[in-house]
Amino acid sequence: MPVVTVTRRLRFNAAHRIHNPALSDAENTAMFGKCNNPNWHGHNYTLDVSVTGPVDPVSGYVMDLGHLRDLVEREILDKVDHRNLNLDVPFMQGINPTSENLVVAIWNVLSPQVTPARLTRLRLWETEHNFVDYHGESA
Amino acid sequence: MPVVTVTRRLRFNAAHRIHNPALSDAENTAMFGKCNNPNWHGHNYTLDVSVTGPVDPVSGYVMDLGHLRDLVEREILDKVDHRNLNLDVPFMQGINPTSENLVVAIWNVLSPQVTPARLTRLRLWETEHNFVDYHGESA
Amino acid sequence: MPVVTVTRRLRFNAAHRIHNPALSDAENTAMFGKCNNPNWHGHNYTLDVSVTGPVDPVSGYVMDLGHLRDLVEREILDKVDHRNLNLDVPFMQGINPTSENLVVAIWNVLSPQVTPARLTRLRLWETEHNFVDYHGESA
Amino acid sequence: MPVVTVTRRLRFNAAHRIHNPALSDAENTAMFGKCNNPNWHGHNYTLDVSVTGPVDPVSGYVMDLGHLRDLVEREILDKVDHRNLNLDVPFMQGINPTSENLVVAIWNVLSPQVTPARLTRLRLWETEHNFVDYHGESA
Amino acid sequence: MPVVTVTRRLRFNAAHRIHNPALSDAENTAMFGKCNNPNWHGHNYTLDVSVTGPVDPVSGYVMDLGHLRDLVEREILDKVDHRNLNLDVPFMQGINPTSENLVVAIWNVLSPQVTPARLTRLRLWETEHNFVDYHGESA
Amino acid sequence: MPVVTVTRRLRFNAAHRIHNPALSDAENTAMFGKCNNPNWHGHNYTLDVSVTGPVDPVSGYVMDLGHLRDLVEREILDKVDHRNLNLDVPFMQGINPTSENLVVAIWNVLSPQVTPARLTRLRLWETEHNFVDYHGESA
Repeated sequence: MPVVTVTRRLRFNAAHRIHNPALSDAENTAMFGKCNNPNWHGHNYTLDVSVTGPVDPVSGYVMDLGHLRDLVEREILDKVDHRNLNLDVPFMQGINPTSENLVVAIWNVLSPQVTPARLTRLRLWETEHNFVDYHGESA
Repeated sequence: MPVVTVTRRLRFNAAHRIHNPALSDAENTAMFGKCNNPNWHGHNYTLDVSVTGPVDPVSGYVMDLGHLRDLVEREILDKVDHRNLNLDVPFMQGINPTSENLVVAIWNVLSPQVTPARLTRLRLWETEHNFVDYHGESA
Repeated sequence: MPVVTVTRRLRFNAAHRIHNPALSDAENTAMFGKCNNPNWHGHNYTLDVSVTGPVDPVSGYVMDLGHLRDLVEREILDKVDHRNLNLDVPFMQGINPTSENLVVAIWNVLSPQVTPARLTRLRLWETEHNFVDYHGESA
Repeated sequence: MPVVTVTRRLRFNAAHRIHNPALSDAENTAMFGKCNNPNWHGHNYTLDVSVTGPVDPVSGYVMDLGHLRDLVEREILDKVDHRNLNLDVPFMQGINPTSENLVVAIWNVLSPQVTPARLTRLRLWETEHNFVDYHGESA
Repeated sequence: MPVVTVTRRLRFNAAHRIHNPALSDAENTAMFGKCNNPNWHGHNYTLDVSVTGPVDPVSGYVMDLGHLRDLVEREILDKVDHRNLNLDVPFMQGINPTSENLVVAIWNVLSPQVTPARLTRLRLWETEHNFVDYHGESA
Repeated sequence: MPVVTVTRRLRFNAAHRIHNPALSDAENTAMFGKCNNPNWHGHNYTLDVSVTGPVDPVSGYVMDLGHLRDLVEREILDKVDHRNLNLDVPFMQGINPTSENLVVAIWNVLSPQVTPARLTRLRLWETEHNFVDYHGESA
């Protein structure tokens, strides 16, 4: 059976502030500049969720993309869309909401729930000019 | 001399909350839903600034787009980028930051400063799915 | 009060065939070429719906874009999305589904329903390389 | 010699219906929902064809992208563009035209014909919100 | 009969240099900066050609977009694509190739040839961040 | 520590001519067609620079994207933007400026300078329809 990767793109809008509470205000300003604005700023995020597996010979699908969309909407978008990533999101409590930390947290929520397909990539666009990729790897 | 419209696209990121302080919290929630989240949300805004005029026969320009970019960066982007539209922006003080109110406020700042060309359109994208246009008209 | 135009972008997928039943098959083939394929072809359409009006001083809105989206989804998308424009769509019965005819038909459905704002433009993209605009004008 | 991957993007429009003829109509409706509409629907597909190889020291090319474009136009686009994927396409006969099955079928046509470069990825976008990737792997 | 505007998007790549031969080199450098580089630079241009007219009741078209594409390819793209706008293009001889001057020159070529429809807008994108519009108006 | 890849997108405009000086003019014309135009043509290039590494637990970053942007602007964009790739660019002297050769040359400049993160991919778009990827591999 051929193995294919299918990707669903979803979008959400959120406020955040890049801030490490373990550092002083001066250290946060030095490290994060205008991204540390205490009154927040925000983004239109784009999230590409990729799952990989054999193509089911009955459905012709790796995974029903409608089910994948519903899963991501329920587990992620309902919790982050039109919210504050520092204050409102259970799975980001105590985590500095850089794109890197956010994509890892989303992975940890979604990864157990797409079986029998495998979550193989998350791409998170913060703006039109930067994005992060995570494949579940550690060093 | 031919009359041409030239447009420069710029981007900024900001937090905001749709909220009319003259209404009660319950009225704000009823009217604005999740856009009224007290902890803010945010967007990557795209602003298209259009000026119209005759093409200068010496330069071949309606207006030097580098000058237009510098003007918009100094007067608008330096004040809204990575900021909170409700709290941080002088020209939005006391104004509910809907896209409609924001585009009118930006018009009022830029319009006197592009002469001898004329500001003829501002298009402000709040997301990939909605934008507002303002041509300086009133009813 | 400033007058602003607000636009909501929506998408749908449909099959169609460019075909005028008043002409012979040979005439249809000569006039429409591969777009006349009897087994259909299809598109991802993008529809930009623009309404114009004064900015309401209480809401800061010309019209609640959530209401506009709901209206277009109920009146248009529920009838054309994942459908055949020649066979399945009540408001296209007997109409050759060129982009020009389709945008006029959509206008006739939506125009009476956006009051007190005014429908001022529909832009319908058939592909990334062509679109049509209609403002409700006749000759 | 450095090894580089070059990608050519092409587009086509087609009608289809997600339908497994080995299942009953009720089973097809339950499994595929509105994508099973008997009167078809359609898409603007985008196909990214990637080939990998060493950079030829004389031409500076991995493969002449004009030749790659001609190959994909002749072998794929001439057979699917403005066609019905269930009815009109020789290499899709008897195959349920999900994106997964379509990308595998395109791979099987193109893979033998790009030598000495190697076909290393096909990405097929069905809409702006979903795409599939195939690298020729099986399970 | 409803009056609709149809637009065809086309692309070309060209080299140019912003340079007014009536000025000295020092004046050109002062006025045009890096855009005056004597060794040229270049762009991927996008041209949106819009024609307006009544919808033909037999074809359902304002104008066959295939004919419009062929016209623009023959009259414009064959002369500018992969060329130098200062040196190679007959209809730009002696004209400083700013976007403003280029869009007016393209208008003068196309405008007489789209009858009985009317050329009503040309939009020329020089980069993702700037474009010019011309409607055939003079001051 | 999770390992994440971060990507920064940057743009530049340049003229070039596909030409191998070791070949005769007739051979260059035969091999490169209109891309060999002696008067040059040009492009809006888009460059996606990807670096990979563990997420720093203090900053939440793999690498400060502002630093990455500054590095690419200083080492690459200042040398290629609004320039001629055949004539003006020190790191392209004597190299035929195909996308393949250009992406390898950019890699060689950037790769030593992003430590302790690793440069893991460069994607260079020459037009909307083609791009090349390089991961530092050789054959």
